[in-house]
Amino acid sequence: MRLSELDTPCLVLDKGKVDRNCTFLRERMHQLGAELRVHGKTAKNIEAIRLAMSGQDRGITVSTLKEAEYFFENGITDIVYAVGIVPAKLDRVAALTRRGCALSVICDSVAQARACETASRKHGITLPVLIEIDCDGHRCGVQPGDPLLLDIGRILHRGNGVELRGVLTHAGESYNCRDLNCIRKLAELERERTVRCSEQLRADGLPCPVVSIGSTPTATFTENLTGITEVRAGVHMFMDLVMAGIGVCEVSDIALSVLTSVIGHQKDRGWVIVDAGWMALSADRGTASQQVDRGYGVVCDIHGDVVDNLMVETVNQEHGIVTHRAGEKLDPDRFPIGSMLRILPSHACATGAMHNSYQVIDGGAEVLAEWQRTAGW
Amino acid sequence: MRLSELDTPCLVLDKGKVDRNCTFLRERMHQLGAELRVHGKTAKNIEAIRLAMSGQDRGITVSTLKEAEYFFENGITDIVYAVGIVPAKLDRVAALTRRGCALSVICDSVAQARACETASRKHGITLPVLIEIDCDGHRCGVQPGDPLLLDIGRILHRGNGVELRGVLTHAGESYNCRDLNCIRKLAELERERTVRCSEQLRADGLPCPVVSIGSTPTATFTENLTGITEVRAGVHMFMDLVMAGIGVCEVSDIALSVLTSVIGHQKDRGWVIVDAGWMALSADRGTASQQVDRGYGVVCDIHGDVVDNLMVETVNQEHGIVTHRAGEKLDPDRFPIGSMLRILPSHACATGAMHNSYQVIDGGAEVLAEWQRTAGW
Repeated sequence: MRLSELDTPCLVLDKGKVDRNCTFLRERMHQLGAELRVHGKTAKNIEAIRLAMSGQDRGITVSTLKEAEYFFENGITDIVYAVGIVPAKLDRVAALTRRGCALSVICDSVAQARACETASRKHGITLPVLIEIDCDGHRCGVQPGDPLLLDIGRILHRGNGVELRGVLTHAGESYNCRDLNCIRKLAELERERTVRCSEQLRADGLPCPVVSIGSTPTATFTENLTGITEVRAGVHMFMDLVMAGIGVCEVSDIALSVLTSVIGHQKDRGWVIVDAGWMALSADRGTASQQVDRGYGVVCDIHGDVVDNLMVETVNQEHGIVTHRAGEKLDPDRFPIGSMLRILPSHACATGAMHNSYQVIDGGAEVLAEWQRTAGW
Repeated sequence: MRLSELDTPCLVLDKGKVDRNCTFLRERMHQLGAELRVHGKTAKNIEAIRLAMSGQDRGITVSTLKEAEYFFENGITDIVYAVGIVPAKLDRVAALTRRGCALSVICDSVAQARACETASRKHGITLPVLIEIDCDGHRCGVQPGDPLLLDIGRILHRGNGVELRGVLTHAGESYNCRDLNCIRKLAELERERTVRCSEQLRADGLPCPVVSIGSTPTATFTENLTGITEVRAGVHMFMDLVMAGIGVCEVSDIALSVLTSVIGHQKDRGWVIVDAGWMALSADRGTASQQVDRGYGVVCDIHGDVVDNLMVETVNQEHGIVTHRAGEKLDPDRFPIGSMLRILPSHACATGAMHNSYQVIDGGAEVLAEWQRTAGW
């Protein structure tokens, strides 16, 4: 089957680009002395994750218990569930643990640490727990220097079925950077604050075998991983326009696109209307605050080559309006009704989430496979 | 099962509210002399659509062929596919037609009209086609007064297997209104321009049995449907914060919400962090341009009652940050780790699209059923 024979809209994944993106970051992390723990939340698919792990057994990160269950059923046994745990989710965590999954959870409060203890005793398991650190004010995590760190650490190490595995952070603010200097500063902040927390734990006689940091921008540009054992990243696998906008990749590195058909023209307004609306592209407007606003996505031809400065400027549920970014008027007759285009995503995680599967290519127009995504919680 | 026993995040639908919202609009359309043709794109679920049709056999609207196939398999035989048709989709249209579905498609170009003719002859079917009219510059459609209308109409009526069914428009600009006056003006514009097109067709000796308009805001506030045969609306079934923001409903009419758990606090910043990020809520920021920006959703307690002025201000993939809209600092201890909240959606169609099913309640905390959604194209 060729791309031109597919029903539109659908999600296209170039596995050659995935391989190159993953190889780059994995090797870079090795050079700096840390393991890359790939995040499953972007791909939500086992074939892509196997590609990212280069055929070896490695640990991964997930953002939902559904992902943990899916990846475990597909042979991955070392998983970090990197969203703060709540008591009601611990039964499902314990069920995976009892089936042989080394599943770590994270927490940043005494209440969560105690809930982990209770669940471990209830289920007769040893539950590995990481303490989440706030390195940049982005969302969750214990502040470096807050005595809460040791309070949680001591609960997790008092021998009630919980294993204190270490510390973990995510420099989510790096997505808001405008230049490499900003990313490098955040990368060092991420490293330094997390290492400092690991040292506080150890100085108190507590174990801290894992010091886990990560975001695609900081992982790409960090120059020093002293004290770090692993780096987590997800969007690096596919890349997207937000990453290109802050210099983390080139637009040509983006492995994900939405195949779409031209369904209408408004000649007077210079609009080409396609069947990729927010339902196919997502409503994510991640580049709106960047130097170049790329709307809901950059327009390529069916071969994946960018067409002039065309972008999807407006979306409704099943309609996207393609215009010329620089304000020039587009001649819609260049793109007849029924012709196909490919849209590069603003945010790959969000665009992926709107689809059930990937149509897999390797550079050309031949569809080599269909890879299913997991979804839900 | 009670709401408090559900895994979070998940989608909750109050069927009593759906029933009241649907009954209101259906009866209002009857009073004004038109049929309500409910749009399946918001619910994407047969039980909700049956509720909207009050147990009677009625026609519906859909936004994808997948929806058309799903609803036809669930007994609905009169369907308008209200997104401009492309040649490659006509095989699937014809397959439904041959199975007995009265499926109409829409077009706004000579190329599409000819493609409909070709497909009808190829498959030996009679394909009903509506001409899409642009009433407000929102997206697709023939401009009223453009000779293109008659060009298309004549092709559709020259007896080559296609049946000219009439004209159709959607006043999508009504979502951008700020007050009722704006909505009423657009409602009259929508009616008047579409009726004018129907008269142009008839004056040329062409049939126009269907004159179809619709959007939830204009349908709610129109006072005159002279010349209109049917009105289409979808979001009226569930309502949302965008609709409440322009006065189409009260916040208490919103039937859809996302059940979420508190997973963290940042006391110094006055943040409560929940497990509903953009993956559960969608990245839609529809109220951002309204008088009151309600972020990614309004926060309710588990019973569905709005809590102060709390809203989800920021989202990541699986994290939502709840803050006080008026800028007051929130005391996170009011919402302990693991406690549950419900988030009202900015845009019901978009939030629904992030989930596979609805947990159905009727006012209380008891889960009465789980209704599945269809998805994809």
